[in-house]
Amino acid sequence: MINRADLLSAHQIIKGLIHNTPVLTAASINAILEMDLYFKCENLQKVGAFKIRGATHAVFTLSQTEMKFGVATHSSGNHAAALALAARWKKIPAEVVMPISSPRVKVEAVRGYGANITFCEPNQEARESTLNKILEKTGATFIHPYNNEKIIAGQSTAALEMLEKIPNLEYLITPVGGGGLLSGTLLACQYFYPHVRVIGAEPQGADDAFRSLQQNRIIPSISPKTIADGLLTSLGSLTFPIIQQYVDKIITVKETSIIQAMRMVWERMKIIIEPSSAVPMAAVLENRDFFQGKRIGIILSGGNVDLGKLPFNSGD
Amino acid sequence: MINRADLLSAHQIIKGLIHNTPVLTAASINAILEMDLYFKCENLQKVGAFKIRGATHAVFTLSQTEMKFGVATHSSGNHAAALALAARWKKIPAEVVMPISSPRVKVEAVRGYGANITFCEPNQEARESTLNKILEKTGATFIHPYNNEKIIAGQSTAALEMLEKIPNLEYLITPVGGGGLLSGTLLACQYFYPHVRVIGAEPQGADDAFRSLQQNRIIPSISPKTIADGLLTSLGSLTFPIIQQYVDKIITVKETSIIQAMRMVWERMKIIIEPSSAVPMAAVLENRDFFQGKRIGIILSGGNVDLGKLPFNSGD
Repeated sequence: MINRADLLSAHQIIKGLIHNTPVLTAASINAILEMDLYFKCENLQKVGAFKIRGATHAVFTLSQTEMKFGVATHSSGNHAAALALAARWKKIPAEVVMPISSPRVKVEAVRGYGANITFCEPNQEARESTLNKILEKTGATFIHPYNNEKIIAGQSTAALEMLEKIPNLEYLITPVGGGGLLSGTLLACQYFYPHVRVIGAEPQGADDAFRSLQQNRIIPSISPKTIADGLLTSLGSLTFPIIQQYVDKIITVKETSIIQAMRMVWERMKIIIEPSSAVPMAAVLENRDFFQGKRIGIILSGGNVDLGKLPFNSGD
Repeated sequence: MINRADLLSAHQIIKGLIHNTPVLTAASINAILEMDLYFKCENLQKVGAFKIRGATHAVFTLSQTEMKFGVATHSSGNHAAALALAARWKKIPAEVVMPISSPRVKVEAVRGYGANITFCEPNQEARESTLNKILEKTGATFIHPYNNEKIIAGQSTAALEMLEKIPNLEYLITPVGGGGLLSGTLLACQYFYPHVRVIGAEPQGADDAFRSLQQNRIIPSISPKTIADGLLTSLGSLTFPIIQQYVDKIITVKETSIIQAMRMVWERMKIIIEPSSAVPMAAVLENRDFFQGKRIGIILSGGNVDLGKLPFNSGD
């Protein structure tokens, strides 16, 4: 059970290491949509994503004994880079299992932070068996990307920082993949800003959170298909109950809305967000009538995209 | 003659209308280049460029009579959008002459702010003759994009804000096109932060400022060729003497360096800058030995790019 003190302690531990990222507004977007939007820019965070919050919290709360043996995880993306950097800050070893299909830029980022990489076949079974061998061999502590209380408490700090600056939000929307950011945000609001209604936004092509809530049990994400490559994972045993208890609702969005939202933020705010980050904005675009006249916070979760493979066509 | 009080007055007049944009740093870029870089993010400014500073100052200091007849300008880009928005704030008409070759995103911005657009052939003569006809017909006041004291004083405020936050810079680098931003920055430093050495950065393919300083007279920019579409213009009779008197030096850069610098800022800082904005960073990349160990400010002048026409190749 993660309590109020856990969230405050997480922020104390990590705040000197991470950026208190800016909250930006865009007058032109507000004028077009007739609402007040506030964007917490975790794309401008270290490693380009909120993931450094949870990873730093998890690494910096290890026992002295655990530290000796280092940390390990499997991830094709931002959590791997975040764990690698947090481990480097603490000068402890980091082992990362990455699918051989991982983008070269992400592999290079993880390697650049000094982690030891082991490649595996691109499926869940291979990830887990490869990781298990490493855990046996090294004695490292497995830091799950989201199903971990330290990670959830760490991710809650983005909402804490945002609401300290803009306390009177009516809604706060985050993307939902494994649910680490959403469950952390839910706890932050529940404990400190209970007037804020928290919404999870999810691609239609990876709507396991939406279906899990409908059926009151974790529905795994089977062959998800979406451009939002950070949202392919399924909810976990720790994140699902928090979401189930506190979330206002889950909104699912179309792929075309994600690209439209991403382009709108790039063009009008001049900041780079990855497709997963655009999913809450897509939810707003698909539900303009509902959100009109409201004060809405959005957590822009990350900005790691391959600039050579953008979904914007010439002449659009 | 623009004096200290003019700069302070400009800031007083515009500061409630514009953003005091953030100054960002990038740990990974500093680590790679072994220097301390500070980026004043005018790409996050209203209209996506510093130009709103000068335009707002010019519009808000018009006489009541001048206001009646509105304002006019010729510009391929950001100044046009800025003047259009400032005029809309004051509820006065704005006429803009734009070359038919202007980037789509910039034309749409100008139109969105409610200015009346007249297109012309993409050369200086056509710009001026088209504008003159409009001035005769409307009686509007011509607000030159840079050769105007109100504009120069307005552009100085980006450096004033930046140095208020980070006073101990050793160098401050701006791009140079017509010289409005550079001359304003030079005056800001000369009057308030004389220890800061100000450098202008310019594409080799549009090196009229470099040649003008060498030959002690304004050398017009003839058929400039560069991806930095905001830097095609020649120095003016007001900007050249300021630059001549106070600038530390002009550094010219290759096109490949501009694209490399632009990509580095996009990838590592997750912010969108237009090619003209990348020219100071390109100057740093081409002169790493010179800048190593120094504290360097860079004014990122704008972020208006066509997302459908980016200079990044797949697989780079």
